[in-house]
Amino acid sequence: MQAEIITTGTELLLGEIVNTNVAYLAQQLAQSGLDLYYQTTVGDNEDRIATALELAMQRADVVIITGGLGPTVDDVTRQAVARATGRELVFQPHLLEQIRCFFGKRGRQMAENNRQQAYVPDGAVVVENPVGTAPAFIVETENTVIVTLPGVPHEMRFLTETRVLPYLRQKLGITGVIKSRVLRTCSIGESRIDQLIGDLMRHSNPTVGLAAHPGQTDVRITAKADDERAADALIAVAETELRSRLGDFIYGTGQQTLEHLCIRLLRDEGKTIVLAETDPGALTRRLGSVEASTDAFQSSTLAPNGPTLLQRLGEHPRAGHGHSQDRLDIAVIVASKVRATHGADYGLAVISERATDTQQTYSASLALAAPDTVLRKSIRFRVHTPSSDNRLANAALDMLRRVLLGLPQT
Amino acid sequence: MQAEIITTGTELLLGEIVNTNVAYLAQQLAQSGLDLYYQTTVGDNEDRIATALELAMQRADVVIITGGLGPTVDDVTRQAVARATGRELVFQPHLLEQIRCFFGKRGRQMAENNRQQAYVPDGAVVVENPVGTAPAFIVETENTVIVTLPGVPHEMRFLTETRVLPYLRQKLGITGVIKSRVLRTCSIGESRIDQLIGDLMRHSNPTVGLAAHPGQTDVRITAKADDERAADALIAVAETELRSRLGDFIYGTGQQTLEHLCIRLLRDEGKTIVLAETDPGALTRRLGSVEASTDAFQSSTLAPNGPTLLQRLGEHPRAGHGHSQDRLDIAVIVASKVRATHGADYGLAVISERATDTQQTYSASLALAAPDTVLRKSIRFRVHTPSSDNRLANAALDMLRRVLLGLPQT
Repeated sequence: MQAEIITTGTELLLGEIVNTNVAYLAQQLAQSGLDLYYQTTVGDNEDRIATALELAMQRADVVIITGGLGPTVDDVTRQAVARATGRELVFQPHLLEQIRCFFGKRGRQMAENNRQQAYVPDGAVVVENPVGTAPAFIVETENTVIVTLPGVPHEMRFLTETRVLPYLRQKLGITGVIKSRVLRTCSIGESRIDQLIGDLMRHSNPTVGLAAHPGQTDVRITAKADDERAADALIAVAETELRSRLGDFIYGTGQQTLEHLCIRLLRDEGKTIVLAETDPGALTRRLGSVEASTDAFQSSTLAPNGPTLLQRLGEHPRAGHGHSQDRLDIAVIVASKVRATHGADYGLAVISERATDTQQTYSASLALAAPDTVLRKSIRFRVHTPSSDNRLANAALDMLRRVLLGLPQT
Repeated sequence: MQAEIITTGTELLLGEIVNTNVAYLAQQLAQSGLDLYYQTTVGDNEDRIATALELAMQRADVVIITGGLGPTVDDVTRQAVARATGRELVFQPHLLEQIRCFFGKRGRQMAENNRQQAYVPDGAVVVENPVGTAPAFIVETENTVIVTLPGVPHEMRFLTETRVLPYLRQKLGITGVIKSRVLRTCSIGESRIDQLIGDLMRHSNPTVGLAAHPGQTDVRITAKADDERAADALIAVAETELRSRLGDFIYGTGQQTLEHLCIRLLRDEGKTIVLAETDPGALTRRLGSVEASTDAFQSSTLAPNGPTLLQRLGEHPRAGHGHSQDRLDIAVIVASKVRATHGADYGLAVISERATDTQQTYSASLALAAPDTVLRKSIRFRVHTPSSDNRLANAALDMLRRVLLGLPQT
């Protein structure tokens, strides 16, 4: 089964916005087992939308069009679909009623131009839109199912998941499902994972694949089966085997991040943490980005470098020679000092330094002051890249995670 | 003059990455006065790339193709271009030499499969790529100029700006230029700006348009002229008039942000700032995201609410009734306390509170402790939205900007 996506909108062709709808729809199609060979974007122009649709109808079993269902004169997608499929636009009184209701519930008056949203091509299946004013619709021709959706991302996503995919699965007789589960690892490299689980990566159902991100690697299990339950069972077997081999390098699943996990662990125990870190403060940003993190994350002290950080914490800057041992000593003092000053349960210090030599090495010292110990670690990157800061933050967060879960440090 | 864009890559059609190259290229084409009517994405498949290109060649004066110039078996764009234009691929020894040099300079050995990157269609203009291994190339047919670029964003952008656009301008005899300049405003709403400059927005060259963002509005001046100098002159006249009307509501130009401006102003004066704010800590994230901000940005104390923030600063929580006056008092104490504790020049406190009533109102108190005064301000949003936090951070940053520049508060 082949699918195509046509996204419409002059703002896309002027580069005013990035087209995120395509990536979303492409993922959904892939998970439904539909192959996507072409994706086209056209402006708000009836001729060109119709031309793109006519071409897509020659090639694909399913065409999904987004955008251009609004109430303005620019919104010409319904006309283009009617033209390409040789149908008239027909007024649907019950759609007008729904649109009126949508405004009424929000205490607003429907404008006259919303009336055109109640027209759909003759014979189309109307897909009611409870989250917006633009009804979606599906037109079936001899060879192709054409799905027309609004371009507003949250409306498009809602309608895709609740209406369109179930419709397509039934219509096209897609009986199987494709499900994925992601296991998230940290403190272990892609090549080491490959050594540990390479044999599992050669299986065909479920498949196991890797995706490397800065400082962490995702292991994705994907299963095809007749129904969700059977797919889940296939995934569970693979997950058990992967967990037995990768152990505590797996810190979470799905979209979970290390910072979310650490904040949750701290909150569950009613514990608090304070940070002290040097430029660029990646850890502060990441812990601060977790919703309601401030229950656990009390404060952050920032500075361009270790000696200044000491000073800002009211300590005398130490005369060192910039050796990694000096930096590690500073990190230990800093972590203990911020913990004591703020009366927090944990104090975490990250002190990084970019060498000015031609190698552009990037070294860092981490220290975590816990109630009865201070852990320390040195890290060195051969080259500083934009991802080094996140790798470093991951190392610090994994140090914390392992303390909070009583796991050995790496 | 019409252009089309073809982006290639199976990862795009699986939804694994969002296609940001299109928005960039679309902007560049628009600024060069080229109309973009169609954009197509195809996978790493020689047949389909060739098919898409043949169609585009029938419609467009310029076709830009990105992706698929790498060294792996998946990289088939050069074969597809050769096929669609009816040419042979020809080995270019000097390209192989350049690729070898690229690796050599980085202390690496060229792999044998990089050899295929030295082939281009017969008669193509080679576009050397100093920032990557994939040379780009341009093929001219009777009616169309076909530009083939690598898909790696930074390589694609570099080659577009330094090589491709100058080439196209000359080749297509594009004499005019379109230039834009953005004036960034804050603390003033879109409708108020519209009242002040609406008459200028009806002019045709330069045009003046607005783009509203959370808590700030961009004013974009766009001029068409024969050359850059003439465009700059048109823009300068409009800018002078806009500045005389909008005054100090304009805080910057281009991509400049309030947080960049504030950090720069602080650093220029050798001054420091400390923050204390409640969840979600938007100001901490924004100041922390400025490169080298830690010269000026010393620390941030965070808490879920005002009373806890007071406690974390070692003050007794005040018994209040949750009135806005209580909250404003707390903000003033907090700002003064963090400033004194850290020996900083400025202490900025942001205390926000989401009402639990059905209205979901969102109120906040700001206080800025400066060397000889403490400024305060209350803010109330009728509805809490994801952008409220940024609006609030903008209000706090503008308070600071106005103090640093000696401007009156709004």
